[in-house]
Amino acid sequence: MSFRTIEWRDNKVIMIDQTRLPAEEVYNEYTDFQGVAQAIRGMVVRGAPAIGIAAAMGVALGAREIIADSFDTFYRQLENVCEVIGRTRPTAVNLFWGLERMKRVALQHKELNLNSIRELLKAEAISIETEDLAICKEIGRHGAALVKEGASILTHCNAGGLATAGYGTALGVIRGAHEAGKGIRVFADETRPWLQGARLTAWELMKDSIPVTLISDNMAGWLMKTGQIDFCVVGADRIAANGDTANKIGTYSVAVLAKENRIPFYVAAPISTLDLKLANGDLIPIEERASEEVTQIKGIQIAPEGVKVRNPAFDVTPARYITGIITEKGVVRGDYERELKALVGQ
Amino acid sequence: MSFRTIEWRDNKVIMIDQTRLPAEEVYNEYTDFQGVAQAIRGMVVRGAPAIGIAAAMGVALGAREIIADSFDTFYRQLENVCEVIGRTRPTAVNLFWGLERMKRVALQHKELNLNSIRELLKAEAISIETEDLAICKEIGRHGAALVKEGASILTHCNAGGLATAGYGTALGVIRGAHEAGKGIRVFADETRPWLQGARLTAWELMKDSIPVTLISDNMAGWLMKTGQIDFCVVGADRIAANGDTANKIGTYSVAVLAKENRIPFYVAAPISTLDLKLANGDLIPIEERASEEVTQIKGIQIAPEGVKVRNPAFDVTPARYITGIITEKGVVRGDYERELKALVGQ
Repeated sequence: MSFRTIEWRDNKVIMIDQTRLPAEEVYNEYTDFQGVAQAIRGMVVRGAPAIGIAAAMGVALGAREIIADSFDTFYRQLENVCEVIGRTRPTAVNLFWGLERMKRVALQHKELNLNSIRELLKAEAISIETEDLAICKEIGRHGAALVKEGASILTHCNAGGLATAGYGTALGVIRGAHEAGKGIRVFADETRPWLQGARLTAWELMKDSIPVTLISDNMAGWLMKTGQIDFCVVGADRIAANGDTANKIGTYSVAVLAKENRIPFYVAAPISTLDLKLANGDLIPIEERASEEVTQIKGIQIAPEGVKVRNPAFDVTPARYITGIITEKGVVRGDYERELKALVGQ
Repeated sequence: MSFRTIEWRDNKVIMIDQTRLPAEEVYNEYTDFQGVAQAIRGMVVRGAPAIGIAAAMGVALGAREIIADSFDTFYRQLENVCEVIGRTRPTAVNLFWGLERMKRVALQHKELNLNSIRELLKAEAISIETEDLAICKEIGRHGAALVKEGASILTHCNAGGLATAGYGTALGVIRGAHEAGKGIRVFADETRPWLQGARLTAWELMKDSIPVTLISDNMAGWLMKTGQIDFCVVGADRIAANGDTANKIGTYSVAVLAKENRIPFYVAAPISTLDLKLANGDLIPIEERASEEVTQIKGIQIAPEGVKVRNPAFDVTPARYITGIITEKGVVRGDYERELKALVGQ
C-alpha cells in the first residue's frame, strides 16, 4: 500500500490525518499521549483496529512521560493515561482491548526497572500494529474465498487500510478477492455524516486501482433491488457474544436490505473486536457525536441554523442478518454464541 | 404558510429558489418558457406537483411568446414549448400531466382568437396551482386521520409546501396531524445527495413550528429498530397501475426498513401523480443526475477527484411495501390495481 495509517518512529507516533483526506495527504506527529487521545477523539485516526493500535501507542508515549520512582507510582500514572485514552470514544472495543493489553505487559514485568518496562510497552504497541497487518491479510484470505468471480461488492464506511495497520478488514476481503484475480468491483456507500466512504474508501481503493463506484447511502438498497450487488462486507466496532455487531451507523440498514434481497452480508473483523462479556448487542454503548457533523460539511452549513439533530455514530446489526463473521481464524456462521466462544478457545 | 413556492404574477412566474435554501430565501422571476425549463432542470423548483404547476405556467408564458396567425401555427409552436419543458426531467409524471392539460385547453378552444387562448392557458395554469393547494389540504385531512397521538413520523426528501403549491403531500399529512393537535414530531432524512430533507423539509417545518429532528439517511433504519419511529410518510413522483411508486432515491430503503420493523409506510400524492398507463414500476423512467451532486457539496469536493459515481435520482418502491396511498379522494389500500382504477373512475 502506498500510505501508512499509523506508525511508531523515533519515539513519535505518526498518523495520516484522516480528517483531511482525500484533499490532502498529511502526516501528523504526536509526542505525548494527550495528543494521541485528541487524535482518536477528533478522528484523525479511526476504525476499530486502528484505534486499538493508536491507543496502545498512546500508552507507550505516556509511559515515557511518566516520572516515577517505583512501579506502583508508575503503574498508577499509567492507569491514568489509559483512563484518558479510554474516555475518547466508547463503542469500538479494540480501544479497551489495546489498553488492557498494555496494562498487562506492565504488570507482567513489574519486577523490571521502569525504563525496561517503557521499552517493553513500546515493543508491545509496535507488535499490535505488526500483528494487525498480518491478521488483516488472514481475514482477506478467508473472506476472498467467499467472493464469486466478477462480483459487485458493497461496503459501508471504511474498514480498510486506513481503519487498520493496513490492508483492512472488509477492504481486506476486497483486496484479497482482487489479488486473487476475481475481477470484482466495489460500490462504496459515502457514509454520512463523516463521509468515510467518499473520503477514505474511495481514496484507498483508487490508490490500489481497485474499481470503485461511489454512491450515497440511500442508493444501496435500490442497487440491491435491481440486481447490481452480489455481496456485502463491512467491518465491526464491537461484536457481542451472540454475534450482534456494532458498526458505523447505516450498517443495520444495509444488512436488512441485503437480507430482503437475498444477498450475502458478511462482517469482517479481528478477534480483538469480539466482546464476549456482552451477551448481546443491546449492551454495546453507542456514541452520539456532535450535531455539526450532520449540519455542516467542511464548515459549510447545509441545514437551517438551530435545527435539532440526532447523530448516533454506530448501530447494532442483530446476528440474524449476518451471513457470517470473517476473522483471522476463519469464518464463523450459524450458532454465533457457540462458534465465537470456540474461536477464542473459551 | 410564510413562503410561496410558485406564483403567476404580472405575467411572470415567481419561484422561491430552492437551490439556495435554507441559507437564503430568494425569489426568482421568469418571463419566458426557456427560463422555466431551466428552473425545472436545475431544481430551482422541484417536487412532482410543483413541477406540474411550473410546467403549466411555463406553457402559459410560452403561449405569450408565440408569434402566429393561425391556430395550427400557434399549436405547433405550443407543442414545441411543451417538448422543451418535457425534456427537463423524466420521472415525475405531473410534468407531463401538466403539459397535456395545457395542450387540451388549447385544442378545446381552437375556434377562439389566439389572445383568448393565451388568456385561457394562463387561467388554466393558475387553476392548476390553486387546485393543488386544495388537493394537498384534502390529502392532509385524509392522512391525519391515520396518525396516532404523539406519533414520531419519519419522512424522506421534501414532499412539502415547497414541492407543491403549498401545504404539501407527505408534509400535508404531517401538517394535518399537527393542526389536529396530535402532538406529533418529525424525523427528516437529510436526503442525499441533494439534501432536500436537510435544506427544505427542516426549513419549512421549523418555519411552521412543527418539531423536527434532522438525521442522515442511514440513521432512519436504526431509529426504527430502536422504536423511535411510529409512522412513515413520503411523497411520490409517479405511481404505476399496480401501486408501485417512484419517489426520491432512498424511499425504497425506508419502505423495506419500515416493513421489517412493522411500521406503517404511507405514500401521499395527488391523483395527478398516478400513471395508470404503466402496468408496474419497472416501466417508470429513472433519472440519473450529474455525478457532481454526489462528489461536491456547495461546490466543495468531498470525494477523490475522478471517482466513478452512480446518481439515480429516484427509486421504485414495490406496492407490497406500501401500507396505503393517501390521495385527495381518500386512502387506497390492498388491491391497488383495482382501487386506483376505481379512484379515477376508470
